[in-house]
Amino acid sequence: MSRTIQTIFSPSLFNQVEDLDKKIVVIIDILRATSTICTMLESGAQEVITVASEQDARALAKTNGFILAGERNGEKLEGFDMGNSPLEALKADIDNQKIVLTTTNGTRCIHMAREAKSIIIGSFLNLSAVCNYIDDHTEDVVLFCAGWKDRINMEDSLFAGAVCMGLDGDYQFDDSSLLAQSAYAIAEDDLYRHLQSSNHFQRLSRLNVEDDIRYCCEIDQFESVPTWNGESIQLIGYKEFL
Amino acid sequence: MSRTIQTIFSPSLFNQVEDLDKKIVVIIDILRATSTICTMLESGAQEVITVASEQDARALAKTNGFILAGERNGEKLEGFDMGNSPLEALKADIDNQKIVLTTTNGTRCIHMAREAKSIIIGSFLNLSAVCNYIDDHTEDVVLFCAGWKDRINMEDSLFAGAVCMGLDGDYQFDDSSLLAQSAYAIAEDDLYRHLQSSNHFQRLSRLNVEDDIRYCCEIDQFESVPTWNGESIQLIGYKEFL
Repeated sequence: MSRTIQTIFSPSLFNQVEDLDKKIVVIIDILRATSTICTMLESGAQEVITVASEQDARALAKTNGFILAGERNGEKLEGFDMGNSPLEALKADIDNQKIVLTTTNGTRCIHMAREAKSIIIGSFLNLSAVCNYIDDHTEDVVLFCAGWKDRINMEDSLFAGAVCMGLDGDYQFDDSSLLAQSAYAIAEDDLYRHLQSSNHFQRLSRLNVEDDIRYCCEIDQFESVPTWNGESIQLIGYKEFL
Repeated sequence: MSRTIQTIFSPSLFNQVEDLDKKIVVIIDILRATSTICTMLESGAQEVITVASEQDARALAKTNGFILAGERNGEKLEGFDMGNSPLEALKADIDNQKIVLTTTNGTRCIHMAREAKSIIIGSFLNLSAVCNYIDDHTEDVVLFCAGWKDRINMEDSLFAGAVCMGLDGDYQFDDSSLLAQSAYAIAEDDLYRHLQSSNHFQRLSRLNVEDDIRYCCEIDQFESVPTWNGESIQLIGYKEFL
């Protein structure tokens, strides 16, 4: 029997996932949490601990000497070491550090998916690695788009479509996955230009993060798959993981 | 300021609609409730009264001598005069009759949207009429896809995309509308073939309703827009409505 690929366009739809404990969940928050997590770990961070509340993030970082990163509504929080910018992560001196990250949308999805068999982090930066990881496993898959405050957004949906198109095997796609594939087929030649028409792009543009957005559209910069181990996210080259 | 077009892919997302009482809601349940409603009214039915519960539908029809139509899980209910087949409606002798209709998904959406400024019924059969109706009004618009048991489905999403592409004016589309447009752009050359890959098609195929599905893909057979008046749906040529 072929494996199923289910795309969840918004956290509001996540309760439609059945048998979560038997599935791989790919967390998708392209602008910018999952792009940032991939970049932080590739920049040498030892692990990223995602925390839903700002207060918990502050407490955890203070007690343990962790780096404190995060945003609310796209903006860096006061007193934080870093925001939620992948380009900032690329330049930062975070080698071998532990990072506490709190974000508006992406962090919450990891918590929602915590009973899954495995949770991995997807972004255009590690697109092929995510596809290879899925091809090399046997479980059914949920592509879980963080969206923006429960609303469907373009960039996460396009990434779900990109994953569907990048898979190589016998898969059964749900209708959301088919929709996402069509959208990506139209957008893939110029992802950045295509995103310019999206609502979230317009929201983030006001925060002067165009460079971040350009970077988040770069495909296959990394070959690894950040994986949640129940407590934090670590970088696990997927071959190593098998 | 440009008018907003918001696509709601599933009833689970309908709570994201703000200021419902100021908006036009287009109810979309292509396979098959909204295609059937359009056909019933074009076939001469005086009005269609949509009822959520099977029991209420039976009682209402019995008391008033209305024609009783409906399905559960795609199948005609026992003792009903008609199922939910648009082709059956096309051939039936329903001239000047009142019809009580109960369906799994579409009926519920009308109830959910009941506080809207206006509620109209959309199908490929009256696509251009729906677009013209929207162009000729001034309110913001919600394209409300019934889906299948809260899941997103292909045919309703494609119709939402078709409406977005058919509009002629200054509109601001949300990301769901943009996704739907991309999907329709890929599907429009051969809608029926495209729907064959969808989950709902496969579900309905088992019920031997391929002819119904082919019919529901026929664009612009009718020039009118069924409109909900608070109690039932009636056919109102949109020009007449202005």
